[in-house]
Amino acid sequence: MNDFILYGDICHSPQPDRIRVEDNSYLIVENGTCKGVFRQIPESYEGLRVLDFRGSLILPGMTDLHLHAPQYTFRGLGMDMELLDWLNTYTFPEEAKYRDLEYAKAAYAIFTEGMQKSFTTRACVFATVHAPATELLMDMLEKSGLITLVGKVNMDRNCPDYLVEKSADASLRDTEDWILRTRERYSRTKPILTPRFIPTCSDELMHGLRKLLLRFDLPVQSHLSENYGEISWVRELCPEAEFYGDAYDRFGLFGGDHRCVMAHCVHSSEPEMARMKKNGVWIAHSPESNMNLSSGVAPVSMFLERGLKVGLATDVAAGSHVSMLRAMMHAIQVSKLRWRLLDRSVKPLTVDQAFYMATAGGGSFFGKVGCFEPGYEFDAIVLDDGKLERPQEISVRDRLERAIYLADESCIAAKFVAGSRIL
Amino acid sequence: MNDFILYGDICHSPQPDRIRVEDNSYLIVENGTCKGVFRQIPESYEGLRVLDFRGSLILPGMTDLHLHAPQYTFRGLGMDMELLDWLNTYTFPEEAKYRDLEYAKAAYAIFTEGMQKSFTTRACVFATVHAPATELLMDMLEKSGLITLVGKVNMDRNCPDYLVEKSADASLRDTEDWILRTRERYSRTKPILTPRFIPTCSDELMHGLRKLLLRFDLPVQSHLSENYGEISWVRELCPEAEFYGDAYDRFGLFGGDHRCVMAHCVHSSEPEMARMKKNGVWIAHSPESNMNLSSGVAPVSMFLERGLKVGLATDVAAGSHVSMLRAMMHAIQVSKLRWRLLDRSVKPLTVDQAFYMATAGGGSFFGKVGCFEPGYEFDAIVLDDGKLERPQEISVRDRLERAIYLADESCIAAKFVAGSRIL
Repeated sequence: MNDFILYGDICHSPQPDRIRVEDNSYLIVENGTCKGVFRQIPESYEGLRVLDFRGSLILPGMTDLHLHAPQYTFRGLGMDMELLDWLNTYTFPEEAKYRDLEYAKAAYAIFTEGMQKSFTTRACVFATVHAPATELLMDMLEKSGLITLVGKVNMDRNCPDYLVEKSADASLRDTEDWILRTRERYSRTKPILTPRFIPTCSDELMHGLRKLLLRFDLPVQSHLSENYGEISWVRELCPEAEFYGDAYDRFGLFGGDHRCVMAHCVHSSEPEMARMKKNGVWIAHSPESNMNLSSGVAPVSMFLERGLKVGLATDVAAGSHVSMLRAMMHAIQVSKLRWRLLDRSVKPLTVDQAFYMATAGGGSFFGKVGCFEPGYEFDAIVLDDGKLERPQEISVRDRLERAIYLADESCIAAKFVAGSRIL
Repeated sequence: MNDFILYGDICHSPQPDRIRVEDNSYLIVENGTCKGVFRQIPESYEGLRVLDFRGSLILPGMTDLHLHAPQYTFRGLGMDMELLDWLNTYTFPEEAKYRDLEYAKAAYAIFTEGMQKSFTTRACVFATVHAPATELLMDMLEKSGLITLVGKVNMDRNCPDYLVEKSADASLRDTEDWILRTRERYSRTKPILTPRFIPTCSDELMHGLRKLLLRFDLPVQSHLSENYGEISWVRELCPEAEFYGDAYDRFGLFGGDHRCVMAHCVHSSEPEMARMKKNGVWIAHSPESNMNLSSGVAPVSMFLERGLKVGLATDVAAGSHVSMLRAMMHAIQVSKLRWRLLDRSVKPLTVDQAFYMATAGGGSFFGKVGCFEPGYEFDAIVLDDGKLERPQEISVRDRLERAIYLADESCIAAKFVAGSRIL
């Protein structure tokens, strides 16, 4: 059942500033929940089954706070544009194909398999405007064993005819039906409200989404302050908003009384950061995406210092990989270039900070998730880093850093989500 | 023998600005040399053996213009420092281990295997100061089938006692012996003069290396304008030099009458760029390394526009991977951040430019290498990109772009170097 003990080299990050390493230790799991890490098995747990991962790294499962399922199959294509042109040229035509359930089935099967084999145990996922394809995706994700929040996208303006929802009313009706059909159907998969971003959502639509939020007690995901062109456009569309995030907050879709995660925040102003802190909005930092679309680099170590909630995201397909290890590597790398090229006052990210964001930082959006402290849900990745050959002895801490740069999915020896082994 | 025909989807870049795609075509190889790409097999070649790679991408072999063999086994470690501290804290202690031939044997075996399985067909390789270990590395590389230039490193000042060569004389004697022992021993592996960089090489040593260059007609590799601290240090050490590159040129070790490749050139001044152009110096652009050590981003599209010679490099271990596909991806990504964060006058790199640099750009250091024009040596990678699942039909050009972002070494279906198949 869900009671067992893992033995191996355990690394986790209850705090952003330091990875805690407990080598050759026992991690007790009872009823899918962590009971603590020990050098010896405590007497009260003797007799529990021990899974021996001697010599492997035992890491918390990773949370991908933002990615687009229908974009998975065009990763690595069309990276020669900035956000708004990229959406119109590549993304919207691809997403329109998900009206066709056969296409959705083939493509989402590839996506789900990729996610299942990845380092990710939990994710916030954008689907498309199409409720039937979104349900299909949720069916598949439920079977994968991952825990996900999945959003049918809302967009009733400023996008191509072949994709736009015909009215705020139609969008809201579809969304309500979809929520009613899915909110209690699954144990691991839940709906999340998903206005694509301010430019594609009318005021009427946003008001209606707030009503659905209150009625069904749902979380919210969207995009924020990714690109200069986008930010100017929002300023034109919503002259009454103090800043981009305020345009969500005016409708009650920017945290405070609900969980809300916003992707990017590359160019967030001081008042926007202050509001995110006040409202407890999670930031989904998407470093590779922000390179590929030439958006820039978010000041992440400043977010962390100020106590904002930050997790990591792959943002497929503007990011080309679902690997959260790569997301950590990219987060560190771009923070160094930001420091070098733009602003020496914001320090580069450390390995410890990146690891925290990928695990406990993003995991917190799902509750007590992302580390091995007692009371946390047990999500874990066991990494057989012995495949990364080396002639020298190195510490467990160094093995972890090395794995972040070098390991790929083939190094996964086991994967657990909420106490269940799925790989 | 070395006469055969490859069939498949052929992509190469005789020029920097556009990838040439020839789908479902035949590439004729005679005596290890390309004879051209054709839609039908020409009559005069009928009867030659056809290797059928239908549906796979046939790409030129890739040249890694700069990497450090002894650093391979500490990739992904100690990325929290800039260049000079990184050398003293991590790199020099590791390189000192190569005095021990047993350690060198174990570590270089891992390196050689990694290179053999990679996308790289040719490389410019730094070893360490130790001639015996460098010879061992050359033995191993010769057997791998790769074509490489390998350098015993020279450093007779400003480095730790446990690594420094005891005098310019001692360094030169060792180097001369090593050249005599290796220059005619191998068919694929040749020595290259390798003063580590100006800070670690006395004037006397540099004068002596110039004499060896003339006597044995050798190429040169070194480092240039990577990091601000390094550049200031060179200014102090060589006040008479007009700029960093001039400090090499004063000794006749900066191209002109010999092949010379300089890694990095992140912060090259206008006069330095002009001298590189005049002397025909190759630039080894190392994008991941330049992120990891917070060095910055070289203005590569400007180099290309000005007609400088530029290739790509992984610079292991400041770069964490030997994958030249990743080097292309990183080159494009960092060029976008440079454009966004620093200087809108230098355009981001295109996929076409990155592909050119990884193939014909760097390949030119080895002669007629890196594309499939008639007369070029036949180096090739056959990529089975069918492993990268997708639900939609896309063009060969798009498949190549996608593979650059997504493919890893497991997609290699065949690898040829100078007409010989090595994978």
